[in-house]
Order: sequence, then C-alpha cells, then structure tokens
Amino acid sequence: MTPEKSSDWMTAAEIAAAVKGGTMTALEATEAALARIAKAEPTLNAFTDVVAERARSRARAIDAALARGESVGPLAGVPFAVKNLFDVEGLPTRAGSKINRDLSPAKRDATLIERLEAAGAVLIGALNMGEYAYDFTGENIHDGPSRNPHDATRMTGGSSGGSGAAVGGGEVPLALGSDTNGSIRVPSSFCGIFGLKPTYGRLPRSRSFPFVASFDHLGPFARSTADLALAYDAMQGPDADDAGCAVRPLEPVSASLAQGLDGLRVARAGGYFAQNLFPEAREAIDRVAKALAITTTVELPEAARARAAAYVITTVEGASLHLDRLRQRPNDFDPAVRDRLIAGAMIPAPLVDRAQKFRRWYRARVLELFKNVDVIIAPATPCVAPTLGQQTFVLDGVELPLRANIGIHTQPISFIGLPVVAVPIPLDPLPIGVQIIAAPWREDIALRVSYALEQAGVARARRPKDF
Amino acid sequence: MTPEKSSDWMTAAEIAAAVKGGTMTALEATEAALARIAKAEPTLNAFTDVVAERARSRARAIDAALARGESVGPLAGVPFAVKNLFDVEGLPTRAGSKINRDLSPAKRDATLIERLEAAGAVLIGALNMGEYAYDFTGENIHDGPSRNPHDATRMTGGSSGGSGAAVGGGEVPLALGSDTNGSIRVPSSFCGIFGLKPTYGRLPRSRSFPFVASFDHLGPFARSTADLALAYDAMQGPDADDAGCAVRPLEPVSASLAQGLDGLRVARAGGYFAQNLFPEAREAIDRVAKALAITTTVELPEAARARAAAYVITTVEGASLHLDRLRQRPNDFDPAVRDRLIAGAMIPAPLVDRAQKFRRWYRARVLELFKNVDVIIAPATPCVAPTLGQQTFVLDGVELPLRANIGIHTQPISFIGLPVVAVPIPLDPLPIGVQIIAAPWREDIALRVSYALEQAGVARARRPKDF
Repeated sequence: MTPEKSSDWMTAAEIAAAVKGGTMTALEATEAALARIAKAEPTLNAFTDVVAERARSRARAIDAALARGESVGPLAGVPFAVKNLFDVEGLPTRAGSKINRDLSPAKRDATLIERLEAAGAVLIGALNMGEYAYDFTGENIHDGPSRNPHDATRMTGGSSGGSGAAVGGGEVPLALGSDTNGSIRVPSSFCGIFGLKPTYGRLPRSRSFPFVASFDHLGPFARSTADLALAYDAMQGPDADDAGCAVRPLEPVSASLAQGLDGLRVARAGGYFAQNLFPEAREAIDRVAKALAITTTVELPEAARARAAAYVITTVEGASLHLDRLRQRPNDFDPAVRDRLIAGAMIPAPLVDRAQKFRRWYRARVLELFKNVDVIIAPATPCVAPTLGQQTFVLDGVELPLRANIGIHTQPISFIGLPVVAVPIPLDPLPIGVQIIAAPWREDIALRVSYALEQAGVARARRPKDF
Repeated sequence: MTPEKSSDWMTAAEIAAAVKGGTMTALEATEAALARIAKAEPTLNAFTDVVAERARSRARAIDAALARGESVGPLAGVPFAVKNLFDVEGLPTRAGSKINRDLSPAKRDATLIERLEAAGAVLIGALNMGEYAYDFTGENIHDGPSRNPHDATRMTGGSSGGSGAAVGGGEVPLALGSDTNGSIRVPSSFCGIFGLKPTYGRLPRSRSFPFVASFDHLGPFARSTADLALAYDAMQGPDADDAGCAVRPLEPVSASLAQGLDGLRVARAGGYFAQNLFPEAREAIDRVAKALAITTTVELPEAARARAAAYVITTVEGASLHLDRLRQRPNDFDPAVRDRLIAGAMIPAPLVDRAQKFRRWYRARVLELFKNVDVIIAPATPCVAPTLGQQTFVLDGVELPLRANIGIHTQPISFIGLPVVAVPIPLDPLPIGVQIIAAPWREDIALRVSYALEQAGVARARRPKDF
C-alpha cells in the first residue's frame, strides 16, 4: 500500500470519498484498518472480536458494486466497529460479561449495523466495554481494560471504552456505543473524540443487549462532526423491530451542519454544572463558552436530585434485568457490578415511583428552559482520563469514589433523554470533552454547534502521538 | 309536590325531559332528591356531605334560565353526587380518610363536576367511600359502612360504595366514582346498577384525589345505559388541567346506543374468568351470553398473573402516594389500609419493574384478541353482595380472604385500561353485575351492548323494595 492510500487518521467522509473516487478500494481501507488494529491492540485492547473475513468479503462486494457502476452509499468502504452489546451475526452478544458468552451466536446483526452497512460501511469487529454497561471506567475484569490512546496507563472511560479507544486510537474512524448515564460522552471526553448521544427513542435499539431500557441510547463515535452526522443520517428512521423507537420522519442533518450559529441562542449550565470540576474541565468549558460568545447562564433545577433519581432507577432496572443471572451465576459477574445490582434488587419500590415522578417534573422544567435557549453547554466529565485502577478523586475538596462520580455531569442529561454531542477539546497532554445539549429531537442543532466549534479550531480530535 | 312530579326512580333523562318540558322544575327535582336523601340516609349512609344550599341555588339558576328561554343542557335539573375524592368547592377532599379532613377546603370543583353542571346537572353532595379508595367492600371505619339498598345488612362494594348506594337506593339518578381495580364495577354489581369505567386516559381527573395514578379511572353510575351515555358525553374531552387525559376528539355515544348488535362480534371470557364463581355469578353471565347468542370463548392469557401484577403495582404506587402520611400519622389510618400500604412500601423495586414489563406484554396480547372480537363479557364479581363485616368466602372449594378477592375478575381488565360497562342482572333476591368489555376507546360499543341487554330485559336496575 502506498502512503497516499493509507487510511490512517482519515475520517469516514474522506475514506468514502476516496473509495467512491477510485483512489482507494474498500478492500484497501479494510486491510489498512485490520493492520492498524493488529498493531494497536496490544496497547489499546479495544477489540474483543475482529471479523476480518466478513469484513473482507463485504469490502470486495462494495468494490465489485463500484466496478459495475452501482451506487454504494455515503459510507462506502468505511471500516467501523461496535460495542460488543450489539448483535453481530455469528457471535454471542457478550455485553462485556462472562455469562453472556454462553448465549447462542446472534442470528442477525443489530439494526444499526445493518443500516451502516446498507450505507456502504464495513463492520470490522466488536469492542470491549464495561460489564453489562454498568461502568464509567472502561475497565473489564474479564477482558482487561481498554486503554487510553493518549496515555495507555489511563482509562478510556466507560462503558463504551473500546469504542473510545478504537476511534481515538485511529483503529477505525467510526464506532457505535451506547449511553445510559454517560457511556458515550465519557469515553468521548477521555479519548478526545466526538460522540453523539441522540434523543431517547431516536435510533432503533433492536438486537442490542439492554441495560436500563428507559434510559438506553445508542449512538456513534467519530473524529469529526461531519462523520457523526453521516453515520447518524444513515441510522435514523423508524424500525418495525423496535416499537420503542419513535416513529418520526427522517430528519437528515449532514446538509445543514455548515449553517453556522446564526440565530442560535446558546447558554452555559450554571450551578451544579459549574461545580465539581478539575481545572482542565473548567478550561475546556471556558474555551467553548468564549468561542460561542456565551453571555447567558441557565440553571437546570435540582440537577443533583436528578442524578440521584437516575441512580436509583438505573440500579433497579438493571437489577430487574439481571435478577435471574444474579440468582443463578453470582460468581460469574464482576463482583463490583454484582454488588451494585444486588443493592438495586433491594431498593423499596415506592422510592422508584417517587424518582419517576420527580423525573417527569424535572423534564418539564428543563424543557421550559429550551423556550429561551437552543443549546446548553456543560462539562462532559469533571476531569481528564484518570489512571487505570484509580479508586477515588478529590472534587471541590472532597475525596469521592471515582467510578460513580465520573458521570456527575452526564447523568442529569441522559435522565431526560436530551440529545448531546460530546466535543473534544484538545488540551495538553490529555483531551477532555464538553457536552453540547439541545432540546429533544434537535440533534441537528447540537451538531451544528459542534461543527462550528470544529471549524473554529476549538474542538478537535487530536491524533495521539503513539498512533 | 304531586305524585306526578315526584322524581322517585326517574332516570336522569326523564328528569331532564320533565324539567325542559316544564312539568317539573329543577328546584323540585332538587328538593325531591334532598327529601329522598333525608329519608334514606339513616339506612344507606351513602352521603358524607350534602350541599343543599348550593344545590338549591344552582337549581333556581337553571329554572331562571329556562324561564328566560335559554338552553340549559341535556342534564337540566338532574341531581347527582360524587364520591368524596372529587374536589367540591368549599369542602376538604377527604377521599374516605380521617387525615384528609384537615386539608384546606377545595377552591374549585373537579373538572367532571364542572362539566356535568355545565350540562345542567345539580350537585347534591359527596359520597362515602373506602379509605383512600383502597377497598372493595364499601366499608369505612371513620364514616361507617355504606349499606346495600337491596339488603342493608350487606356490603355496597367498594371503593365507590356510597355511589352505588345513592344510585341503587334511588337517592340520585346519577353519581360519579373512581375505579382503580374495580371500584366502579364492584359497587355496580352489588347494588344492581349500571357503571361505566371508561378507557384509561379518557376522562379528565383534574382536581380529584388519586390512588394509583397509572390505573385510576373516573366514571359514572346510573340506572340506565342511556343515562350513563348522557353523563359520559357531557364529561368527555381534553382538559388543559390534566395532561394525562388523552387528547381525543369528542366521540359522543348517546345517539348511537340504539344501533343494536348487528355486526358486533361478542365473546365470553373463558379460563380464569369462568372460574371462582358463585352460582349467581354463573347464572348472570349465562343469561347475558344467551341473550347475545354468544358462541365464542376467548382466553385472556395469564389473567392470574395480570391480577398479581396489578396488586403489586397498586400497593407500591399507593405506598408511594401515602409515604409521608404513613410516617406522620400512622394511627389516623384504618389499620387494615395502613398495613397494606406499609407492606407496599417494602416491596423490592425490581419486582415492580417486572410487573410493568409483564403489563406491556399482557396488554399487547389482549389487544390482539380484539382483532377478532369487539366485545368480551366476563363476571363483574364472583358473588352477590356479601354481609357487612364478612371476612372470608369459599371460591371453588377454597376459603379465601373476601376483601381482596372481590376484585378477582375486575383487576385483570382495569390493569390495562380497557373500557367496561358493568350491567346489572336483576337476580332475586340480590342483583349481580356482568362486565361488558371493549377495546380501548370503544366505550360506544360496550354501551351499545349494555343498551341492547337492557332493551331485551336481561339487564335492569331493579328498584329495591325498601326504596
């Protein structure tokens, strides 16, 4: 392969353009990805499964279609990978667990994989993740931790840690993950890439392994806003297999990214979201606020209670999902995950009822804020990627358990299903993310702001020095 | 008042016709109701509050409007009363409790009272009920039991026991109640009157005291199907004060009652609903099946589990609602209600999550049945009205606690919000009800069948010999 044809660090859009323009074949793009994976995996540990033969076969089919002059879609030849809670035909859907490896191999790909492949993309493999997605670290006792491409002694963030590492480390330009309380936004922040958590109910979840069905979102990771938008547009739309996916007309966003910020009312979240920040997080949010010329601060009411309520509902729904496994195979769980789930199994139900009532109240109050603003910015994580194995950190002078508090700024947002783009601010030596939050169903607005920040050079997926 | 002007046992439609036709004034109708109440209350104990002056004032206004030639609505001069969980301006909304009597007086009537009065009806008072609606007996330790008009030693059924007694005993031709697990259908059955539990979300609940918000329905009691339909038509329609009330166009049913049964596919519920029946209940359902020439039996899948799931959700949501009162004023509850609520406060949340998942499954399966049938008939209660204070009964050879099991056939239906008309079958010496169940939003169909059964003489609100 000539250097010109190497797809290292190319975006999905660039690869698709090269493949469609005839300067690179889909098979070359696939082989290059496989080679990068082979080289990077000893460090990153992002993949749990590589489906090389499937990928090659798919790439050859794309090249053949191109040779016949057929249209192959906007992601022609783009290699991608998925968190291992997506069904991949022929693999058991392990969802980061040991227990699920005993499941029968999936008979059919998840809907989102089918849609990306229908747009020309090529599935390369399945990615490491926190056990059953109950995780903010990217660590996994069964598979070992995925490692941060900017510093392999550090966390990727979870639970979509492998997705963060694979995209941030340049193995693939595009990956899918899931976000229940922050599992797309946290790895985006720690790994220095773009991540989109769409509106709750926007993208179909059929044939993916759930965690908390009432909070679970699926979404893409990429190294540019345009790639997020391309992937998102390819995945949108109702799905007969997912009744929970809101039936809405397609609302493609790629074409409108460059509209700029004119007319958008942008505010920063104050109060709760201005607290519990390491200096790096503060620096990142200040840079974004300055670039967007933000003068307004809005307060999300009772955000701390929102986080508490999200916790209660998460642990209870998680416990409900795993109750039989907890009874039958307690020793095959990560003990820390198991104990959280057992605690959830014993929470008295009226507390959850009250949490749900609070949720409706909180959602209504936050939606009112969006009458006066279009976008709210908030930190994605309180800190840059912590060291692997780190147990605590000091937030505003108080030593706290690290794992749970990584999601301190993401949980109150996913709790009510708002769409968010996590944008990477390329601080040195480690990047950190900022949440661009829009009203429900306005992914287009969050993506426009992300794109503008990228054009301004404020947000950028910086290439790690080792990859 | 001349005998001709006495409104004893007249239906709401007959009273409205008389008032509009000038053969009776609204004030006469009101005074007659007040006189009947004064005479019957020592036996029935149906009312907790009589708002005589308000009623007279309202009646005079109607008579004045008629004298001016103004239109006064389809319920002109019709006296009605409401379960005491409806807000009545100037009264604390006691909801059958001692504790709520310390609430401030309501500032405004419940929406459904406003709508009936806007149609010309006259509110006479508020009605006895089981404490906080957690009841199937009609007994109340604070107010004493409401008593069955057909036999004052027997139960009215709960929790809308006062509503059943007031209409069944001829005090008023129309009353409102609520039904969470059977609280309209059970008193209808025991008191021998018609009751409509509309589709969940159909009638607004604003300014009423809740029990289990996810199951609570409000609806009317009357002595004819036509009266149910008149009241229902007057109460339909979206309400800005109740976001939970489904926004649907008005679908008046009164004009279509006499369409008959042509084209309706009617089935009886088998399995679970053909069991646990005293001979009277079996006789009633057989009479209805014969009158409707039913040849089809359908099976509601897992109805026993549906009832169990309804129980779990009821007790947990009830406990959540009353948690502060349980902590602060435990000794002011009926001890039996308190202990049920405390038990609910300790149910582990994952069980409720599973009950809710089951509920979605069950609802979907039952809705599939309605592809092949329009109406399903089922018993309303397993027995005629039990004796006041009775603690157990024998169902299919097993001695069971009576209170909880009175709702054995109603709970699996309200659990998924289906509309039901309870029709009275005038067995001797005590009447008993049958449920006419339709698909969601098809109250019209259930009412048509009720009307046809009434026309055929099979369903009838027989006048009790003492009233």
